[in-house]
Amino acid sequence: MEKLAADVLAGSQRALARAISVVENNDEGAAVLLASLFPRTGRAETIGITGPPGSGKSTLVDKMIALYRRAGKRVGVLAVDPTSPFTGGAILGDRVRMFTQVQGDGVFVRSMASRGHLGGLSRSCPEAIQILDAAGFDIVLVETVGIGQDEVEVARFADATVVVLVPGLGDDMQIMKAGIMEIGDVFALNKSDRPDAGKVERDFMNAIELLERPDGWRPPLIKTVALKIETVGELINAIATYGTFAREHGILEKKRRDLVVHSLRQMLSEEIQERAFQKMGQQRLAAVVDSVLRREAHPRMLAADLAREIMG
Amino acid sequence: MEKLAADVLAGSQRALARAISVVENNDEGAAVLLASLFPRTGRAETIGITGPPGSGKSTLVDKMIALYRRAGKRVGVLAVDPTSPFTGGAILGDRVRMFTQVQGDGVFVRSMASRGHLGGLSRSCPEAIQILDAAGFDIVLVETVGIGQDEVEVARFADATVVVLVPGLGDDMQIMKAGIMEIGDVFALNKSDRPDAGKVERDFMNAIELLERPDGWRPPLIKTVALKIETVGELINAIATYGTFAREHGILEKKRRDLVVHSLRQMLSEEIQERAFQKMGQQRLAAVVDSVLRREAHPRMLAADLAREIMG
Repeated sequence: MEKLAADVLAGSQRALARAISVVENNDEGAAVLLASLFPRTGRAETIGITGPPGSGKSTLVDKMIALYRRAGKRVGVLAVDPTSPFTGGAILGDRVRMFTQVQGDGVFVRSMASRGHLGGLSRSCPEAIQILDAAGFDIVLVETVGIGQDEVEVARFADATVVVLVPGLGDDMQIMKAGIMEIGDVFALNKSDRPDAGKVERDFMNAIELLERPDGWRPPLIKTVALKIETVGELINAIATYGTFAREHGILEKKRRDLVVHSLRQMLSEEIQERAFQKMGQQRLAAVVDSVLRREAHPRMLAADLAREIMG
Repeated sequence: MEKLAADVLAGSQRALARAISVVENNDEGAAVLLASLFPRTGRAETIGITGPPGSGKSTLVDKMIALYRRAGKRVGVLAVDPTSPFTGGAILGDRVRMFTQVQGDGVFVRSMASRGHLGGLSRSCPEAIQILDAAGFDIVLVETVGIGQDEVEVARFADATVVVLVPGLGDDMQIMKAGIMEIGDVFALNKSDRPDAGKVERDFMNAIELLERPDGWRPPLIKTVALKIETVGELINAIATYGTFAREHGILEKKRRDLVVHSLRQMLSEEIQERAFQKMGQQRLAAVVDSVLRREAHPRMLAADLAREIMG
């Protein structure tokens, strides 16, 4: 793993891909690998990009990559796919193929499944970001689809979160926005050349009016058309402006601290859970399950009893 | 709490509403309440209904309620709302108002937030189902929006899961279906009188062709139009057919057993986590977080050390 870590630091794309797989699959040595790379992290800027399916996020990300490259920045992209709940595999794997045309020359793209691994996205994604950070990428873009748990997670570990809106997704989708209004540091109204873009803009303005962020930031709405590269440039500028604000107002520092607390809590509880179930054993678990199925005892009561027994 | 439990069993709608709040907020006495009601559970049939925003789920559910009532069945409805990640509150609260016209006379409707509570939906929703079950509801409908973690959870604790598809949601949405293909026991193609319904049907047939369920069930696609009540009747018949299949092939039994194992694991790990963090203390946690922020140690290493220390 020290060799792999050295290869990642030396800039090998193959080593990078392997290192992320090690972390994603939680292979043996993942902790050692991460520990080796950890001192070299802390320089990358992480940007989350989220929005409903059909909002043109991928094309937008493609143009963002081009602009960041033009500015001499190395860009890592993590495309988070909804996971099939049964197979644990990513279901939008073809997005990676879409991005691969830009791969190489300072760009690295990787698809990640949102679930099915120990700790899910909330463990593997920040760790993949750490690896890209250590490998010297200046910008790490994390793209997610839809609205749900994944988006909340991404907002937690991205330095800035861009929410992509789009005209014509219907009223239900407009309501959904209420949930992501609070996640976005910068909003992109994509496909803004469509005639019905004005309605989304008005809805946004009404919604943002009601939003009171405790940190005092007022998220802007940038009208983008992916094929008009200057509009994507405005989006990138808005992200940078937020970045400066977040650094100057202690928001970034607080966010990174909160993330560490969150990660630690999660990892610690996984470790403890693992040990607890080992202590309990399969036979004991089966007997307890049987007593619940016979409705002799409610799971809550049993859980409390067992915890007391295990932890002392 | 024994009084509340008795009132729930006696059929008081007010007691029912309060009991679900007690569980949702995890108020003191929640465990006692659930333990009192638990022996009276096990008769209700739980049906999950999920699908993208704009698919007309709510109207469909409305008609299903009417048909179940016509058959003399008492119906409880849990409408799971996406939760605002910041406030922890439900963002689609007006859906409850929509349903309230049918409330009373053997129908009870309740909105639930998907997150923001201890253990989230995966704890509070099965417990709310238990309360409705004990109160004598024959059918418990659990409605969720979108695709994501919530849907996977609902599929876990519903006896049968209905996935609602709809024409015209674009290609990205069609891809999303791949994730829910494996969740649905019965599919409803709603708004099936639209001209583009044929495409969704063909896509479904292609997708179902590839799906190999280990339990041997082949999920049917029922074409519904919410205003044509006979089509909703066909949907209800298909759900009943699956129910018989699931009982006869041991699927239901396995599902309920798996749910108990899952619930127990989750509750036990919550209990243990709580105790572990108490043992560690705030000061110790702050010191550990600082060492991570200084990049002296990776969270993984620290978590393992702390778990060893706490658990012995």
